[in-house]
Amino acid sequence: MSELRKDPVVGRWVIILKSRGKRPLEPYIPTDSGRSTFCPFCYGNESKTPKEIMAVRPDGSSPNASGWKVRVVPHKYPLLQIEGELSKVGEGIYDKMNGVGAHEIIIETPEHGLRMEELSEDDIRDILIVFRERIVDLAKDKRFKYILIFKNHGMEAGDTVDHSNSQLIALPIIPDLIREQIEGAFEHYKLKDRCIFCDVINQELRENIRVVSENDNFVAIAPYASRFPFEVAIYPKKHCAFYENNGVNTYKSLANIVKDTLERLGIVLNNPPYNMILHTSPTSGSHNEYYHWHIEIMPKVTMVAGFEWGSGFHINPTSPEDAARYLREAK
Amino acid sequence: MSELRKDPVVGRWVIILKSRGKRPLEPYIPTDSGRSTFCPFCYGNESKTPKEIMAVRPDGSSPNASGWKVRVVPHKYPLLQIEGELSKVGEGIYDKMNGVGAHEIIIETPEHGLRMEELSEDDIRDILIVFRERIVDLAKDKRFKYILIFKNHGMEAGDTVDHSNSQLIALPIIPDLIREQIEGAFEHYKLKDRCIFCDVINQELRENIRVVSENDNFVAIAPYASRFPFEVAIYPKKHCAFYENNGVNTYKSLANIVKDTLERLGIVLNNPPYNMILHTSPTSGSHNEYYHWHIEIMPKVTMVAGFEWGSGFHINPTSPEDAARYLREAK
Repeated sequence: MSELRKDPVVGRWVIILKSRGKRPLEPYIPTDSGRSTFCPFCYGNESKTPKEIMAVRPDGSSPNASGWKVRVVPHKYPLLQIEGELSKVGEGIYDKMNGVGAHEIIIETPEHGLRMEELSEDDIRDILIVFRERIVDLAKDKRFKYILIFKNHGMEAGDTVDHSNSQLIALPIIPDLIREQIEGAFEHYKLKDRCIFCDVINQELRENIRVVSENDNFVAIAPYASRFPFEVAIYPKKHCAFYENNGVNTYKSLANIVKDTLERLGIVLNNPPYNMILHTSPTSGSHNEYYHWHIEIMPKVTMVAGFEWGSGFHINPTSPEDAARYLREAK
Repeated sequence: MSELRKDPVVGRWVIILKSRGKRPLEPYIPTDSGRSTFCPFCYGNESKTPKEIMAVRPDGSSPNASGWKVRVVPHKYPLLQIEGELSKVGEGIYDKMNGVGAHEIIIETPEHGLRMEELSEDDIRDILIVFRERIVDLAKDKRFKYILIFKNHGMEAGDTVDHSNSQLIALPIIPDLIREQIEGAFEHYKLKDRCIFCDVINQELRENIRVVSENDNFVAIAPYASRFPFEVAIYPKKHCAFYENNGVNTYKSLANIVKDTLERLGIVLNNPPYNMILHTSPTSGSHNEYYHWHIEIMPKVTMVAGFEWGSGFHINPTSPEDAARYLREAK
């Protein structure tokens, strides 16, 4: 169904979906329902999704019935298949592997049409703890090197249903940007014996011109070299490589700053479409000393000229200092 | 007006435009006119652009008057400024430089609304030779490390006027993707003493399943690890690091395959928006042995879920084998 292929020059891995006999103008795009009136993520429609993997059910209700608060199901059209051994193959100069992995949907609320920031802090904390539980569970599978959790909010950000959800993809490889972050952080560690993310956080807190907000445990920053207008990164103040290695209070504190940041973006940019991505250490890696987990939020407010894909070159029309100021003053 | 900033972790450079006092929802996007009825690139409106840098004028007409076939002008709202010394500054852990560079528009035809592939091969050759002349001229300026030429066609690809043009940005840094290509190609060269692009081309010509078309000097390929549906790369068959180091016949042959490839994409994808990017060796670099110039064309046919920006992870719903087959059979 799918395979992973490596670019022979830059080493970037890509998932290629194998032929589905579609015509060229109908490339396969995973979607659960399109934007129809029927929503498979609402109460009463539990049978329309694959069987649930886990759920938060405060009322003690049965699996695959209503009553849940957060529900995790396999993606109906998974990009990667959970069954089978990982098989790595060379094709002359090229490298590929079969599409072994997991692809799950975290349905974040039973309420259709709510934005994440409209949920209570406790509700968001529950979602964030579900992320942790899925990572802990999937990390036991030695075929997987990385567990990627991300949220597409709004059609322009790639969302296909108007019902708050995140996606999880467990991968047999480490995504390009994470690999680059690890390599860059390791270089700094070799030179300075320090975590570069900690250095960034310390400087940002000291200078206080790109800080959007903070609480006891976290700080939200408009990154110095932001690629996009109003990009925000949320860092734990205390060094930690793994998202999943935290206690309940940390997720409560994270829920607080995530809600606050999304509210600020919503006020300043009029509820923009956005992507939110969790960057955490690879499951198998030993990058404890120099990787530092964090969350990136990228509102989609300008059209990205596709040439940036071909050059790796970004032009950001809004300075992070301006972005941080607007976001700070929003509330 | 603008500055270049480096991401401290992954080393990626970004152009940040400095505050223009705009409100958040009006980020500055360079545009000459928007899509109004007035077009500054048409005959008779030469005075509405900055003074021309060069033009192809077969009728011997005067600069900044009608009669030209291809016309190069500075961008009216340049991202980088041509005046001034390059100044590199540290800000604690961060690195930046001032926005010194060039930003030019190559107006490819006097005819409004034509697509590049509707021009004759000779007309396209003239444009390609103008690219070379601009590179040769700007490469003399030792402040510039890279000259990036790209074309945004169609609004969804970032085009702002319906008049065929390309843009040139001369940069004091090497864009991320080019740097990664050079590093990857150098690793291969150290191991094998060969150009990795030559190895790719040889394997593709031998296997002949991802080849879209070829002529005496060039081959168009759907890359093995394509990130996007119907991505096409055009390589010179003979090893060469620098786009500008070629004779007139090479550009004629390149015009032939560019026209052919764009026609095929136009037929299969119904005149899609696309980005075309020239990848050539950095001007100052000595990567002769292992860099291999080429052109990338990326039609914009699916929505890119922005999470790919945050993970470096791509999902391509159309295999390059399928894409190549559709494109081969188009004509």
